[in-house]
Amino acid sequence: MPSAEIFSQGDEVVTGQIADTNSAWLAERLVELGFDVVRHTTVGDRLDDLVAAYREIAARTDLCVSTGGLGPTDDDLTAPAIAKAFDRPQELDPVALAQIEERFRSFGRTMAPVNRRQAMLPRGAERIDNTWGTAPGFSLPGSPPGKPSGHGRAWIVCLPGVPREMKAMFDAHVAPRLVERFELAPGRLITFKATGIGESDLQQALEGLPLAGHRSADGLAPPEGIVVGFRTKLPENHLKLRVRADVPDAVVREHVRAVLGAIGRWVFTVEGIDPAWAPDHDCGGGDLAAVVGRALQARRQTLAVAESCTGGRLAAACTAWPGSSAWFREGVVTYSNEAKVRLLGVLQADLDAHGAVSEPIARAMAEGVRNRSSATWGIGITGIAGPEGGTPDKPVGTVHVAVSGPTGTSHRALRLPGDRERVQILSVSSALILLHRAIHPQSPQE
Amino acid sequence: MPSAEIFSQGDEVVTGQIADTNSAWLAERLVELGFDVVRHTTVGDRLDDLVAAYREIAARTDLCVSTGGLGPTDDDLTAPAIAKAFDRPQELDPVALAQIEERFRSFGRTMAPVNRRQAMLPRGAERIDNTWGTAPGFSLPGSPPGKPSGHGRAWIVCLPGVPREMKAMFDAHVAPRLVERFELAPGRLITFKATGIGESDLQQALEGLPLAGHRSADGLAPPEGIVVGFRTKLPENHLKLRVRADVPDAVVREHVRAVLGAIGRWVFTVEGIDPAWAPDHDCGGGDLAAVVGRALQARRQTLAVAESCTGGRLAAACTAWPGSSAWFREGVVTYSNEAKVRLLGVLQADLDAHGAVSEPIARAMAEGVRNRSSATWGIGITGIAGPEGGTPDKPVGTVHVAVSGPTGTSHRALRLPGDRERVQILSVSSALILLHRAIHPQSPQE
Repeated sequence: MPSAEIFSQGDEVVTGQIADTNSAWLAERLVELGFDVVRHTTVGDRLDDLVAAYREIAARTDLCVSTGGLGPTDDDLTAPAIAKAFDRPQELDPVALAQIEERFRSFGRTMAPVNRRQAMLPRGAERIDNTWGTAPGFSLPGSPPGKPSGHGRAWIVCLPGVPREMKAMFDAHVAPRLVERFELAPGRLITFKATGIGESDLQQALEGLPLAGHRSADGLAPPEGIVVGFRTKLPENHLKLRVRADVPDAVVREHVRAVLGAIGRWVFTVEGIDPAWAPDHDCGGGDLAAVVGRALQARRQTLAVAESCTGGRLAAACTAWPGSSAWFREGVVTYSNEAKVRLLGVLQADLDAHGAVSEPIARAMAEGVRNRSSATWGIGITGIAGPEGGTPDKPVGTVHVAVSGPTGTSHRALRLPGDRERVQILSVSSALILLHRAIHPQSPQE
Repeated sequence: MPSAEIFSQGDEVVTGQIADTNSAWLAERLVELGFDVVRHTTVGDRLDDLVAAYREIAARTDLCVSTGGLGPTDDDLTAPAIAKAFDRPQELDPVALAQIEERFRSFGRTMAPVNRRQAMLPRGAERIDNTWGTAPGFSLPGSPPGKPSGHGRAWIVCLPGVPREMKAMFDAHVAPRLVERFELAPGRLITFKATGIGESDLQQALEGLPLAGHRSADGLAPPEGIVVGFRTKLPENHLKLRVRADVPDAVVREHVRAVLGAIGRWVFTVEGIDPAWAPDHDCGGGDLAAVVGRALQARRQTLAVAESCTGGRLAAACTAWPGSSAWFREGVVTYSNEAKVRLLGVLQADLDAHGAVSEPIARAMAEGVRNRSSATWGIGITGIAGPEGGTPDKPVGTVHVAVSGPTGTSHRALRLPGDRERVQILSVSSALILLHRAIHPQSPQE
């Protein structure tokens, strides 16, 4: 499997003013293509550091994808560094220059003389067109097996740091060339998305499976060719299986079944498999709101939501998805008691008797929004997200969620740990889990 | 200025399954403390690669902060790699072991034998207590000037990869030791947060200022000791000035004024300065919703919002802030015409005459939610977020926002580029800008 390294340039990245999302994106793409990604390096805007880094990487790896440093200013040093590192003086690429001039013309502006620098590519470099911005990229071919290229063995690809341009150029121009020039055997990535269970409990539930060996206490190893990974993205925990191309489908399928046997009741969607392998599970991907939305749309059902402590976050999670207008009917954010009475028909007497953060009010909110909107389902959420507003009886994190539907109303009382954002996020996912369970009475969802 | 490098370990990071947010966080902290951060490196879970990387870094830098690889399993290789790289065999730290056992006891569980590994620190290492998880960290002292330490000159600090634990340990235990052991002169970070202007226009507006020299076409350099950076976080564009400790306040203040003179009308808050330097601007930080919320709270005014295409995102942005219940009165998400009539009092005749995505409906939504909630201000947003629903007359990205207040209703028609999320985000910020301007009639905000 050819090896790859990812390199990024820029003071803003190395000093932490920008989180380096390019590298993770590129790494995932390169792994998908079939590369063994072994290292990421980030260096600031200093010529000598860059020269040293390019030389090290070129000697060590088959492919280096570099981002950043292709702009027109003095601190954009990628081409000068490559030129110095590999003794390939910069030369004007007339096509690149014409493209840059044309781009400025299309904005009704004249190219500044300084932008001419962006067309000065290292000798022998192959231009990578950038139709999304001004900075063209370039690549230096690596050495064929057994024949040194003069700059180490790596094929070096240099792309701009602007994520939108970098990603578009990679997909349009770089990936096809990589597939052509390297012998790649791309594998398969399977993602089990779970919620309502913490990462350590998830790992515990997987103990005993050879799959879990990667992380388990008893030293069991995963089957050859399957690498297990975990990723937490509140409120979700993902289990990832990265499967090498030569693992037979039957083996993969068996492992998918074993995983679902162990953690299936927390898994709300599975990505990257044949849906026939998991007939009891959604296989469409996305987040919990997307999964719930698909289930509602398939049943031609609708949802209305009434939120207090989550302040619109549940409605926003639903409406983030294209096509949600087919199933999301309406939402109300009722912070005040007065609004709960006026917009939802909650009884003032219940507010007086139980307080706004209580089971009866969550139920009344769910039923009220369902009745008034004529939606199939109604959700009510009321709670104390903090940091203020807690009492000894009802500390911060006390949340009541309720789901009202054709056969009645269900409720769950929560005591959620963490800060305001965490309480809001977990309240939303708890409400969606409750709705998911109500939609699928035999649901594997806990 | 002492140099620092950041190192992270883990297959999940190097293959892009996790974006490496630890490194950016650490880089920013180290720069704040006064380090010159020169490189980030990420390597997967392979002993030889780790050994090579630690040796390189130790020879090159004054401080290395490493994250990840301190767990109990076979792929947690930080201590073995340090042991092998610097010939410091692992030895049991009895205090660390007791801490790990106690942590399991506090959960009502017994420590698995494998966790004993986490207490095996390289010889000569200083333990860093972890009261937030099971993995203790450790540090290896670097060489005093002129006296080699046996492992290169770097002080090496190893922390767990779990961000919550890593950050807590860094702040509680590592930062104080760094301040004690290095001669540091921390600088100042000033952030101007702008919205309603793109990054290139922002840079254009700064042209001619010596400050902008870092990015400008004419080669002007920023003053010695002030480094300029840009960061885009939709819908915000940030201009950052990193100011060395020895730059006099008078010089800094002059540059703050120059920047505000050039881009002040797009700046909604400034962080890191004496508020007296920018009397016309908010200096409290946060996002646009936080700034608007502070302005409302200071005036004892309230806000209610009616959203269609933004689906609750505006309400969620407001209620993300602690204390928003003091000024955020209520929100409604009305996708359907029927809901706009029932919940907001929009006239069916207006819907028939103009369509739901129109200036009259945005105005009626803003006025309706204001009147029904008795809030000081009402916002209405209606539009087509896409990807479906566009027409030749009203393509995707057509959005109308309106703000209703004590002296009338203002409106803005938008044609927003981009995908659904981008249209939603920019619609929310446009509505908040319109409200900001209505609250501050002499506002510098455009």
